[in-house]
Amino acid sequence: MGIEIERKFLVSGEGWRAAAERVQTMAQGYLNDAGAIERGSQRASVRVRIEGPAAFLNIKSAEPGRSRQEFEYPVPVQDAQQLLALCVGGRIQKHRHYVRHAGHLWEVDEFGGDNTGLVVAEIELESVDEAFAHPPWLGAEVTDLPRYYNLALATRPYAQWSHDERDPAARR
Amino acid sequence: MGIEIERKFLVSGEGWRAAAERVQTMAQGYLNDAGAIERGSQRASVRVRIEGPAAFLNIKSAEPGRSRQEFEYPVPVQDAQQLLALCVGGRIQKHRHYVRHAGHLWEVDEFGGDNTGLVVAEIELESVDEAFAHPPWLGAEVTDLPRYYNLALATRPYAQWSHDERDPAARR
Repeated sequence: MGIEIERKFLVSGEGWRAAAERVQTMAQGYLNDAGAIERGSQRASVRVRIEGPAAFLNIKSAEPGRSRQEFEYPVPVQDAQQLLALCVGGRIQKHRHYVRHAGHLWEVDEFGGDNTGLVVAEIELESVDEAFAHPPWLGAEVTDLPRYYNLALATRPYAQWSHDERDPAARR
Repeated sequence: MGIEIERKFLVSGEGWRAAAERVQTMAQGYLNDAGAIERGSQRASVRVRIEGPAAFLNIKSAEPGRSRQEFEYPVPVQDAQQLLALCVGGRIQKHRHYVRHAGHLWEVDEFGGDNTGLVVAEIELESVDEAFAHPPWLGAEVTDLPRYYNLALATRPYAQWSHDERDPAARR
């Protein structure tokens, strides 16, 4: 088990593309829906992800705040394909670009499918108060907006968002 | 992934004890509740089990009938303890006794905690029509009664069952 401390931002412009070191195609789904966690009938999300030639089962605690317990186990890709078929909600497809800036590695997720148009950048920190430089292409922070969780995007993708919801200043 | 074909019976009397080859203590919980599957908001159960010195994560498809997809992965016991703390519903405690009869290995689960008093015997088959001998201590079949699922017992343990529910002839 690890503790994951992550912050998430929108991305403005294309400035990050030139700095991307590599890109990884990802397909993922969830065995639970976002509603189960909202209703309190589940306390962790269970994600299946195929990441290039590898696949992982991931369990993340649903806790308020920016720090979560995270468990990740490799599984055979063939199992992951069958597990994806058992997932509820839609399948998340994205390209994850790895972009280094001022000593930190950013993950810039460019979504496809029903979430096309959404691009977010995530940074993983060692502690909740770790300082980091904001690259020029970084937009508004959305860490605390549940609609940007991948789990939420599986149930209610970006294509279904209202104009207001696409404005991160809309606080919920 | 494997396909699990299992049938489950009540146990009458203590005749199985003398034939038990070994016993294993198990503690298990579920990351989802039974309601999620009843509501159709989840299509597989996710179980965490500590089994003596080992621990496993298990995913089982929720399908009607006696055959299910099953995925099982070993996880560190320390992870399993933390995952059990993320489970919803109660923790299932049981002693699993392995009893061989006429070429088949029966698992006789003697429940503890809030399920004390419940003893069920399970047999895993190679095909849905595989023949097997009924040992003399075997009671009524409960394969198709959801209240006997371990997932259901985590949410609504045997201690809470009505007199009627303890009668397997009560069909639901």
